[in-house]
Amino acid sequence: MKALFFDGEPRILELPRPRPAKGEALIRVLKAGICNTDLEIMKGYMAFKGVLGHEFVGVVEECENGVLKDKRVVGEINCACHRCPTCRMELPHHCKERTVLGIQGRNGAFAEFITLPEENLHIVPDSVADEVAVFTEPLAAAFRIPEQMEIASTDRIVVLGAGKLGQLVAQVLYTHSKNLLCIGKNRWKLELLKNLEIPTAHVDEPRELGSADIVVDATGSYEGFARALELVRPEGTIVLKTTVAHPTALDMSLPVINEVRVLGSRCGPFHPALDALAMGTVEVGPMITDTIELNDAIRALDRAAHRDSFKILLEP
Amino acid sequence: MKALFFDGEPRILELPRPRPAKGEALIRVLKAGICNTDLEIMKGYMAFKGVLGHEFVGVVEECENGVLKDKRVVGEINCACHRCPTCRMELPHHCKERTVLGIQGRNGAFAEFITLPEENLHIVPDSVADEVAVFTEPLAAAFRIPEQMEIASTDRIVVLGAGKLGQLVAQVLYTHSKNLLCIGKNRWKLELLKNLEIPTAHVDEPRELGSADIVVDATGSYEGFARALELVRPEGTIVLKTTVAHPTALDMSLPVINEVRVLGSRCGPFHPALDALAMGTVEVGPMITDTIELNDAIRALDRAAHRDSFKILLEP
Repeated sequence: MKALFFDGEPRILELPRPRPAKGEALIRVLKAGICNTDLEIMKGYMAFKGVLGHEFVGVVEECENGVLKDKRVVGEINCACHRCPTCRMELPHHCKERTVLGIQGRNGAFAEFITLPEENLHIVPDSVADEVAVFTEPLAAAFRIPEQMEIASTDRIVVLGAGKLGQLVAQVLYTHSKNLLCIGKNRWKLELLKNLEIPTAHVDEPRELGSADIVVDATGSYEGFARALELVRPEGTIVLKTTVAHPTALDMSLPVINEVRVLGSRCGPFHPALDALAMGTVEVGPMITDTIELNDAIRALDRAAHRDSFKILLEP
Repeated sequence: MKALFFDGEPRILELPRPRPAKGEALIRVLKAGICNTDLEIMKGYMAFKGVLGHEFVGVVEECENGVLKDKRVVGEINCACHRCPTCRMELPHHCKERTVLGIQGRNGAFAEFITLPEENLHIVPDSVADEVAVFTEPLAAAFRIPEQMEIASTDRIVVLGAGKLGQLVAQVLYTHSKNLLCIGKNRWKLELLKNLEIPTAHVDEPRELGSADIVVDATGSYEGFARALELVRPEGTIVLKTTVAHPTALDMSLPVINEVRVLGSRCGPFHPALDALAMGTVEVGPMITDTIELNDAIRALDRAAHRDSFKILLEP
């Protein structure tokens, strides 16, 4: 099968079709989404070598559980061992022995086929189109935030970053509090949120500092955390969504003095994400810049890294 | 009056006796404690110039509220304006216009006299000796932790640092969970905790990583946070008590991946601290290395910075 392989350089390779291990399904990929994490991996994040890609929708071709056969599915990316101390703490998403689709020890979805544990799969409702379903994984990451903390309808929320994740986070949190502002660099990306009546501001506009109850760093940039520290009120919360490849110089006295709570936030629950996509309460269509053939994945990655692009989908 | 003044260099100066503003009391200092924050200020932290010192016990000489006259008091160090947006958010400890005794915009307690708002003062029970009462402020900082978060009696707690603050944090949290370990560099400091039957370990001993529910960084060192990130379990909590003068290179991807909660923690409630000192549930006597005359404060600061010293008290 064809796959986009990364081992320092991205390359299109012909690889053997993967064979599902016990409890796993074989999935034919219909569409896959390029995420900033893929771009960070190419800069060295996670020191991953293998097939990239962790956002996908596909069809189950082989499985043990008959219910899944021929079903259209999306899949959670963390594959737990269910034996290590962390799994026994009931934290399988943080399993120390885990593999992570296209990120850690497991080939990813920029390929014709992947394997994943059946327990990771969720059947996609018929009403959700492929190019919408492929957003389930990043949207689940946005839904992780209300799973981790209570959000009051009066909370002043700032979402830093109007990129792929920022848009989803803003849409999800806007259902919790209308007192939300999404701050971005790219005016046409902010425009998409304005069309949904979500308040936005350009990063260069002057802002009141130290007054937000919750600041979400979805910038994908090492500058995001420092900016969040300026914006959050004393005893407020910063939700960190950004993972970057390299350490950054930070003044950690600031969160101590202001008694800020910093919450690392990663993967999230698929059910509310699929529900929101099926109900249309989160809109992802306008975020798609292009769908490109897997054959042309190197060009697709280049385009995804360009500031004028938004979501780029790959199609095997 | 005599005072230890810092403006890049510490100097003993003869300064005019301070005059209390409206709502303030004039306090004659009986004893003051040297804290690591004083040493960090001398390295540039907070860019403070003025009389150092924020841990003290004293006697009220002038006041508006007759009840306080001639009483032995300790005092909270943050002086709020009660008018700014942060005060109106009911966060006076984080008042943006605040002065902080010996740290920000207000001369401190390494002097014969200080002034503080009367609302900041707490009368010391007769049974609490001066050299014990002077620990109220740092002990209150330890009591801030259970005020900020729930601690279960089964929580695995690691306190990093067996210095002045680490000892107090370990003693306070040990009353919440016996599953506590204090990790330090200095064997004789760990010995003090062992005498209280609190489990300790030397920093060089191998440790299980990623398993503590709560890690408190009381190292006072830029290395503390990185070490805490290694020790805390996924979705666990790091309480940051360390304020250092300079930014540090940090990999903030780690707390994101492990969904760690980081809680900045600063000053705390005086009532439980005074209660614990009066009841003897926290023991501070063995932590005192020496009491030195204010005249000799330069030498006292040198000694406080030495690894063989523990708490150094100053006496005007």
